[in-house]
Amino acid sequence: MFPHSHFASVSRHTIWSLAVLCALISTGLWAAVEPTWRELDPENTVFMEMSEGLVVMELNPVFAPKTVQQFKRLAGDHFYDGLSFYRVIDGFVAQGGDGSDLGEISDVPLIDAEFEIDWNEEFSYMPVQSPDMFASETGIIDGFSVARDPSRDKVWLTHCPGIVAMARNDGPDSSRTDFYIVIGQAPRYLDRNMNIFGRVVYGMDVVQRINRGPAQNNGIIQDETASTRISKLRLATDIPEDERLQVYVVDTSNKGFKSLLKNRRNRKQKFFHNKPPRVLDVCQVPVAGRITK
Amino acid sequence: MFPHSHFASVSRHTIWSLAVLCALISTGLWAAVEPTWRELDPENTVFMEMSEGLVVMELNPVFAPKTVQQFKRLAGDHFYDGLSFYRVIDGFVAQGGDGSDLGEISDVPLIDAEFEIDWNEEFSYMPVQSPDMFASETGIIDGFSVARDPSRDKVWLTHCPGIVAMARNDGPDSSRTDFYIVIGQAPRYLDRNMNIFGRVVYGMDVVQRINRGPAQNNGIIQDETASTRISKLRLATDIPEDERLQVYVVDTSNKGFKSLLKNRRNRKQKFFHNKPPRVLDVCQVPVAGRITK
Repeated sequence: MFPHSHFASVSRHTIWSLAVLCALISTGLWAAVEPTWRELDPENTVFMEMSEGLVVMELNPVFAPKTVQQFKRLAGDHFYDGLSFYRVIDGFVAQGGDGSDLGEISDVPLIDAEFEIDWNEEFSYMPVQSPDMFASETGIIDGFSVARDPSRDKVWLTHCPGIVAMARNDGPDSSRTDFYIVIGQAPRYLDRNMNIFGRVVYGMDVVQRINRGPAQNNGIIQDETASTRISKLRLATDIPEDERLQVYVVDTSNKGFKSLLKNRRNRKQKFFHNKPPRVLDVCQVPVAGRITK
Repeated sequence: MFPHSHFASVSRHTIWSLAVLCALISTGLWAAVEPTWRELDPENTVFMEMSEGLVVMELNPVFAPKTVQQFKRLAGDHFYDGLSFYRVIDGFVAQGGDGSDLGEISDVPLIDAEFEIDWNEEFSYMPVQSPDMFASETGIIDGFSVARDPSRDKVWLTHCPGIVAMARNDGPDSSRTDFYIVIGQAPRYLDRNMNIFGRVVYGMDVVQRINRGPAQNNGIIQDETASTRISKLRLATDIPEDERLQVYVVDTSNKGFKSLLKNRRNRKQKFFHNKPPRVLDVCQVPVAGRITK
């Protein structure tokens, strides 16, 4: 088979994410570079349960502090429990939340635009590609794919598969409750236009099972019984510690990850008869996640 | 909601593909540009039935004549009926077929490498992006995403979501029976290294429901009961004409499609507060497909 490498077996207590590792595995690089893992901060970890399975998201308060604050408050209020993914377009996004016109929810405040932030030399920034087709530079900060414009000293989260962002109306400050998960080829044209505030670190295979809506209706599912529902959406900190799963993601800040990027950029396996261009798509660099029971 | 355009309703006899149209719809461009459709040649149309639903593929004998010939022969022999997707990595590929070491199937011949072909001025080529990050130029030929190297007069099919290609061992001419469908962010580093011979034109949402394998086992599903199986894989021409579904895809060769690309490249909607870069990812330009009962 094409790439046919195999892993050493891992701890039985560990359930590895199916949503990750893809190309790491497929190119057999894993064996060469042992990644280190960091445990997610429970303050920024969200468990979303659906009949299809468990999805774990990591929130990013550095890039979207106001959005994360509101999302946490809504999660704490159990706002999302029972709500559906009501607009789902295959290859694009799964959008969930209350589904009504956002303007009608009078008691939930609007969120300011959080499209990009100032560059900070303190970021644990791992460069990926320069130039990228959509930005002068891409990289990864704490597991999140970013793009950067050094000329303006700005950096922003990119629309890669698995990112979680707030839907909005035409106004930049019109986000409120409804969010979407990117489920297809990165729609990078949305970069710097949406409040991206998290990413799926575990369970993207579950997200891919969310029922799609009809294309002729812009993905909107009219038949409520046909839509996939969130049974429970909780912050890790709202779950008693002894019942809580621990979540780990690959640490993207160290030499191990850097060397992995280098090997992906410069593929030396004999499998490649035509050497690939030495470039990396920041959305095709998976950052592994796993949970421990 | 972010992009909130709606379609005019379509024929009731038409089931639209859920796997397409994503960004066309989401940017409201559809209304402005009425696409024209072409009917697929039944000679190059494959129906793959699974318990999860129907998947329709279009074969491409122009780019991969030998691979298509062998795949058609195998389909005609009902070779794939009952076989499983035995190696499925979320965000990467779903690989199906007999799953044994290819070398052990003595009566099925190996297929020569079909990684790229000579450029031909007669192609109905629609340019998409120049330069692209992975090639000097990308475009679309008859609904298939391609990349081109004018300096060598070569053109090849690109690894976009939904493409269908033959798995192989390390040797360039070692493809035989097992194929994969790309189910995640385009692994363009595989371009010019694999026999791409088709694409999914309908039912990518069904493909996304294929059961994933464990990452620590390179996506290989050991438990046979856990794998998604092909119940029936047939060429359209092997199905009696009165039972056969008709399949249409958007015609990518004409002015309507060209204008759609232009609008995607230069987004004028007030929704975009930060104007996206005027570039297009050839794998993020959906080409719609639909079937008619």
